[in-house]
Amino acid sequence: MEITQYISLYEHALFEDVLPFWFQFSPDRDYGGTFSCLDREGNIYDTDKFVELLARQVWIFSKLYNRWEQKSDWLDMASIGSGFLSSFGRDDTGNWSFSVDRTGRVLKAGGGYACACQAAMAFSQYGLASGEEQPQEIALETFRSLCHSMEHPEDDVSEETGTSRRLISLKDTIGLAQLTMEMEWLLKKNEISSILDICTDRILGAFHNTDFNIFHEYAAPDGTHPDCFEGRLLCPGRSLEAAWTLLDIARRRDDVSLIDRTSRIILSTLDYSWDKKNGGLHSFLDIQQKPIDRLDWDLKLWWVHAEALVAILTSFSITGGKSQKSWFEKIHNYTWDHFPDPEYGEWFGYLNRAGEVHLDLKGGMGKGCCRLPRALFFCIKEFKRMRKKADQP
Amino acid sequence: MEITQYISLYEHALFEDVLPFWFQFSPDRDYGGTFSCLDREGNIYDTDKFVELLARQVWIFSKLYNRWEQKSDWLDMASIGSGFLSSFGRDDTGNWSFSVDRTGRVLKAGGGYACACQAAMAFSQYGLASGEEQPQEIALETFRSLCHSMEHPEDDVSEETGTSRRLISLKDTIGLAQLTMEMEWLLKKNEISSILDICTDRILGAFHNTDFNIFHEYAAPDGTHPDCFEGRLLCPGRSLEAAWTLLDIARRRDDVSLIDRTSRIILSTLDYSWDKKNGGLHSFLDIQQKPIDRLDWDLKLWWVHAEALVAILTSFSITGGKSQKSWFEKIHNYTWDHFPDPEYGEWFGYLNRAGEVHLDLKGGMGKGCCRLPRALFFCIKEFKRMRKKADQP
Repeated sequence: MEITQYISLYEHALFEDVLPFWFQFSPDRDYGGTFSCLDREGNIYDTDKFVELLARQVWIFSKLYNRWEQKSDWLDMASIGSGFLSSFGRDDTGNWSFSVDRTGRVLKAGGGYACACQAAMAFSQYGLASGEEQPQEIALETFRSLCHSMEHPEDDVSEETGTSRRLISLKDTIGLAQLTMEMEWLLKKNEISSILDICTDRILGAFHNTDFNIFHEYAAPDGTHPDCFEGRLLCPGRSLEAAWTLLDIARRRDDVSLIDRTSRIILSTLDYSWDKKNGGLHSFLDIQQKPIDRLDWDLKLWWVHAEALVAILTSFSITGGKSQKSWFEKIHNYTWDHFPDPEYGEWFGYLNRAGEVHLDLKGGMGKGCCRLPRALFFCIKEFKRMRKKADQP
Repeated sequence: MEITQYISLYEHALFEDVLPFWFQFSPDRDYGGTFSCLDREGNIYDTDKFVELLARQVWIFSKLYNRWEQKSDWLDMASIGSGFLSSFGRDDTGNWSFSVDRTGRVLKAGGGYACACQAAMAFSQYGLASGEEQPQEIALETFRSLCHSMEHPEDDVSEETGTSRRLISLKDTIGLAQLTMEMEWLLKKNEISSILDICTDRILGAFHNTDFNIFHEYAAPDGTHPDCFEGRLLCPGRSLEAAWTLLDIARRRDDVSLIDRTSRIILSTLDYSWDKKNGGLHSFLDIQQKPIDRLDWDLKLWWVHAEALVAILTSFSITGGKSQKSWFEKIHNYTWDHFPDPEYGEWFGYLNRAGEVHLDLKGGMGKGCCRLPRALFFCIKEFKRMRKKADQP
């Protein structure tokens, strides 16, 4: 396929399929905010709202408004979510919740690092889009508290872990790195640089597995990988998300060595995670090949493939490598053959190992309007960059 | 198959296969306690210890010692676990942890109602077996605190739920009912009776779905079923466990009406939960047939089938009904065709929807030496009861 064909395929998916689906079905016109629990056809099957997903949807519409086109519809959609989030998303002490009911009453407090990170990203982009001051303040406040946690890893205890085995998570680390870049317009250059240094060092240090050239999902603060369920876990989707985050950092610094190192990690992660039997990427693997005790380890998930597309395409766009090209085509083909729903639009999220639809919902507690449109958007930008490069004499 | 053949099949599985597997591979001779993370062959692949599983293993070996044969090996095995649990299982305020590392250091505190319940059952049976006083004290202390929670449902907030939507769980309710019967030797008759009344009323009241004659996994304290993920959830394994718990209560009270009512619920639960496509029982279902957002909903799990065997066999043993007989044979055949591992012994725990092995571990964070041997033991007792009845003139 030609680059132009890729662009029109990805643009059509993003602007004519995925965004319209969420635009039509997700807004809660009565209480504000957006629903994520949409069935295959877009019907709302549950009205609970999940802070991380709410925030991610605010982010994507604000981001597109800021970086693609200033459509008032997009700003309105972001505003529905941000208004609800600023009223009901966090408690009096500034802690973001995990979920709230339709009207905003807290169902589950303690959304943790991930919710706070996504909230800060959302309010930063929405603040930029709307020009309002309150969103910027929320973003900055939340960002400061996340930086504090990063500087004090001894307090940074992941939810899944306990009191006597402290672990840091790849998820939180790349969350902070992405957030810092999203907040660029609100921060000083040296602050951005110093946080990105810390994140990069941590990703390539603590989380890096030198035997296989892949990332662990968790590490001890001293950079060791404890021999326990979390310590042995590889989450290919997150690793590939970490990789494109590193490429973003490398690109803004013209850091050829970081690009090279990250590109190799992407290839070995794909190679390690590809299901040789049925195709597609596994969701979770045990790096020591021990029993994994994650019942969903072999499901094929939309977001894992979305992050993979961004990572391998970005790496290909920068390096032009043959392996990158061939892996991009492999991931692209699997993804487009399996995830889009030809009948009702948008994409399926959960396929079984064989690639058949496992759950046909379009959104729920874990899937919303976020990773898929983000990946499509980032890929479109990357294709355009490639086309521009190719057009240069 | 004749009853005698069933007895020898189940006895062989329990005494020659399952118990020897755990007896050989699980004890931690260095630090005390037992490992649950055993791979297919019995190798220890992780040394973290999970309080609920530790307690359940203490229970089964103590129970068999008390109710089957006073084998010193069984008491020794129970003693390894109970010693470790009494030293490291709970904090200074009496709260049981969820998991500890090999040496007993807390990894995840807050084991909640389920851990406390299993711990009290374990110490009650171990106290009876060993004649020691400390285990009885631990059992009584924990029991009292669980009763307090039961009498104050407003405090009884399930872990999965939050602050503004209070839910009570079927799991906790049947846990307390089972525990009360396990502690019979330590309690007064009227206390037992009054707690069993509360549990029975709650199971048949708050959790009962009259449209389908099945149980909800969660309910609001006022007995309504909120239209949310938890409120719509059917967990067939737990429902069937609730049913045999009710049959236990009915039997000790000669309550024909309760037997009849429960037996009908068992049939409708099996009918509702049977996978018409591939056979076997589903793990989770949404009672309103909405998308479930439980990625493991269609896995075929050992414990669901173990609880189903006990429920349907007990009901058949009491009622002698034709539907009961035919359902017992159906569940028995599926279970024995799919779960036992002919090569390395013990049973697989996790099959995919088609009935193929999904994870080949023998134990982990959720599977230990507990539900399977308990089910085999209860079935053996039931077969013997049936044989005795048949032998009577």
